[in-house]
Amino acid sequence: MSLVVQKYGGTSVANVERVRNVAKRVVTALEAGDRVAVVVSAMAGETNQLVAYARELGGEEPDPREYDVLVSTGEQKTIAMLALAIQSLGRKARSFTGGQVGMRTDTTHTKARIESIDARRLREAIEAGIVPVIAGFQGIDEAGNITTLGRGGSDTSAVAVAAALGADVCEIYTDVEGVFTTDPNLVPAARKLDRISYDEMIEMASLGAKVLQIRAVRFAMRYRVPLHVRSSFEPVPGTWVVPEEEVMEELVVSGVTYNRDEAKIRVRGVKDVPGVAARLFAPLSEANIVVDMIIQNLSRDGTTDMTFTVGRSDYSRALRIAREVGAKIGSGEVDGDATIAKVSIVGLGMKDHAGVASRMFQVLAEQGVNIQLISTSEIKISVVIDEQHVERAVRALHAAFVEAGAAQPRLES
Amino acid sequence: MSLVVQKYGGTSVANVERVRNVAKRVVTALEAGDRVAVVVSAMAGETNQLVAYARELGGEEPDPREYDVLVSTGEQKTIAMLALAIQSLGRKARSFTGGQVGMRTDTTHTKARIESIDARRLREAIEAGIVPVIAGFQGIDEAGNITTLGRGGSDTSAVAVAAALGADVCEIYTDVEGVFTTDPNLVPAARKLDRISYDEMIEMASLGAKVLQIRAVRFAMRYRVPLHVRSSFEPVPGTWVVPEEEVMEELVVSGVTYNRDEAKIRVRGVKDVPGVAARLFAPLSEANIVVDMIIQNLSRDGTTDMTFTVGRSDYSRALRIAREVGAKIGSGEVDGDATIAKVSIVGLGMKDHAGVASRMFQVLAEQGVNIQLISTSEIKISVVIDEQHVERAVRALHAAFVEAGAAQPRLES
Repeated sequence: MSLVVQKYGGTSVANVERVRNVAKRVVTALEAGDRVAVVVSAMAGETNQLVAYARELGGEEPDPREYDVLVSTGEQKTIAMLALAIQSLGRKARSFTGGQVGMRTDTTHTKARIESIDARRLREAIEAGIVPVIAGFQGIDEAGNITTLGRGGSDTSAVAVAAALGADVCEIYTDVEGVFTTDPNLVPAARKLDRISYDEMIEMASLGAKVLQIRAVRFAMRYRVPLHVRSSFEPVPGTWVVPEEEVMEELVVSGVTYNRDEAKIRVRGVKDVPGVAARLFAPLSEANIVVDMIIQNLSRDGTTDMTFTVGRSDYSRALRIAREVGAKIGSGEVDGDATIAKVSIVGLGMKDHAGVASRMFQVLAEQGVNIQLISTSEIKISVVIDEQHVERAVRALHAAFVEAGAAQPRLES
Repeated sequence: MSLVVQKYGGTSVANVERVRNVAKRVVTALEAGDRVAVVVSAMAGETNQLVAYARELGGEEPDPREYDVLVSTGEQKTIAMLALAIQSLGRKARSFTGGQVGMRTDTTHTKARIESIDARRLREAIEAGIVPVIAGFQGIDEAGNITTLGRGGSDTSAVAVAAALGADVCEIYTDVEGVFTTDPNLVPAARKLDRISYDEMIEMASLGAKVLQIRAVRFAMRYRVPLHVRSSFEPVPGTWVVPEEEVMEELVVSGVTYNRDEAKIRVRGVKDVPGVAARLFAPLSEANIVVDMIIQNLSRDGTTDMTFTVGRSDYSRALRIAREVGAKIGSGEVDGDATIAKVSIVGLGMKDHAGVASRMFQVLAEQGVNIQLISTSEIKISVVIDEQHVERAVRALHAAFVEAGAAQPRLES
């Protein structure tokens, strides 16, 4: 008998019929002998509608406290609806708002951090044979104000509930069957991964795979909560996200990811003296612009070129700021390009395999794809290329590393 | 400088534009130097949508706890929206759910009774120059479960807030300009009343005038909260509902009301012995059928006829129960009529004026309207007539008592 936390996203509860289907899945788990707690998001579209109200009445930056009061109604609706649907199948269920489950957060409205959960009421319910249905995405601060965790926060809520209950697994139900080696829409040979480590999942999530919120994976890793990403429509096993030592068969490359939401900015002729990087990047940070890759070439004649990437929606603001700073620090020309994309390969096995990077560059060269920037970490290699070459690059990398490479035994050092 | 509680119903906040208008009215009151707290209902149509979800998923009698969690989201949406709208006009505002304002109720989900309010947070907000925007209709029980007060409960919430704050007035904004002497759609000569006593308002409300929830008026009377019923669209004074001693100019008849939602049932040949009434009405009460008027004629030959009225939607159930009981107690024929209506005249001045009833009967006789049943209280006289005569009866009574009678000085005894 396992204790299972199930999390259903907005598309899984998009209408009354789908809420009924979720209730059936919950009952199926109960019939299999599991004890179940459920975390749900708002119905698909609901949050957007509520955000639109907030903007119409409160402008581009509505008061964050009231914004949270407004958008948190979405999840409150779904918990009651799902509890009713489970009851109508003859099982006991009870809804819990973030406040009622003691989901204590800090006071950072619209992107609050979870501090603690009072799992007592949940445990009591489960022990009494009642399925707790918990609102994702929301909490309360010390003063009793309603807070929200930011977009996608429901995954994090589910992991937090699973951690607090000491659940055996946190199942993340979504509209895909699991985590794939790459985007199946782009590469028909893409296949579902059975298992993947937290680290790999974090790299995959941050690089554009949209199945899991990166924050939730970090949270799961910290509390060692096994995640199971699976389809809410098909009753087949999905992908388990687990500690590294439980990934038996380490792949050199687990996945090929891409992200078109990228733009690059180059600042030429920057004097190569201490403090210059801080002067460039502090104003960007103050403007809430997230900088992804930063590449600085070796100095030549006492100056260097500095290149960085930002989200495409921040491109023109970032370019303006970079030019202002460039003028102040006496740099050379500042230019940019918003027609780039980032392609990455991710894999735990990379740690133990030499030559993966050079093989990657070779594959791209064979395709005539020029590499503009390179950035590496222990388990991933990312390159920035021209946006128009994304599909060709992803297909070639998937063929070379995933389809050909398949599983390779770990090389023990 | 007055302390004013303003309550806005669903039609007043039906869309973003109307929420903005409400915000403007609040700011107008602030500019006039008043301190303001606001209580709001859900957007018109919202509660019906939520109730529909509850029925679709939970059947005809959805679990009341979950029903309350679901429908209470409607008011939570509006408080945030109105707070944002007030802020966008440059004033401070803060939303409060029922739980946040300590609106403690009993645990009778879907029709909870208010037990207490912790007005501390509201007072702090007002003293800090912040307009509290409070969710009507909802509260929490001792265990922290969300409760609702039943349809129209927002009026009661507003009165409770006004009582707890010791407000100078509770303004009830609605889609009519105030309380009228009768239905203006039926009688063009109907006029708005400036003042009316709580007692009169209760009689008027229970007899079909839909401007105010009767429970809210009782609550206001108990805590002596002056009510001001007024239009949310036109900035003109409405009708004040106040203690009897503040109604300077007592009208013999303040209003003529009617109710078509009536049906009558007659049980003939009932043995005139003790306990027979209880045997008849106990099963009706157990079936949750509210009996309005009960008339028993004088006994003749040891038997009597007993007639009573019920709401029209309960008619067929009530008739079936009455026939079952009739058979058991050996009564005569049981028949009924669902094409009747109740017409009433209400007025504090009636207490001191003899002959009002006989004048009423005379007016109806002149119109050829046959009276089927009569029931009187200290400040009202109701008659049951054939439904088809309602308009003629109301017009004639309004002409005779309101238009002709106008204000009459109180007769001191």
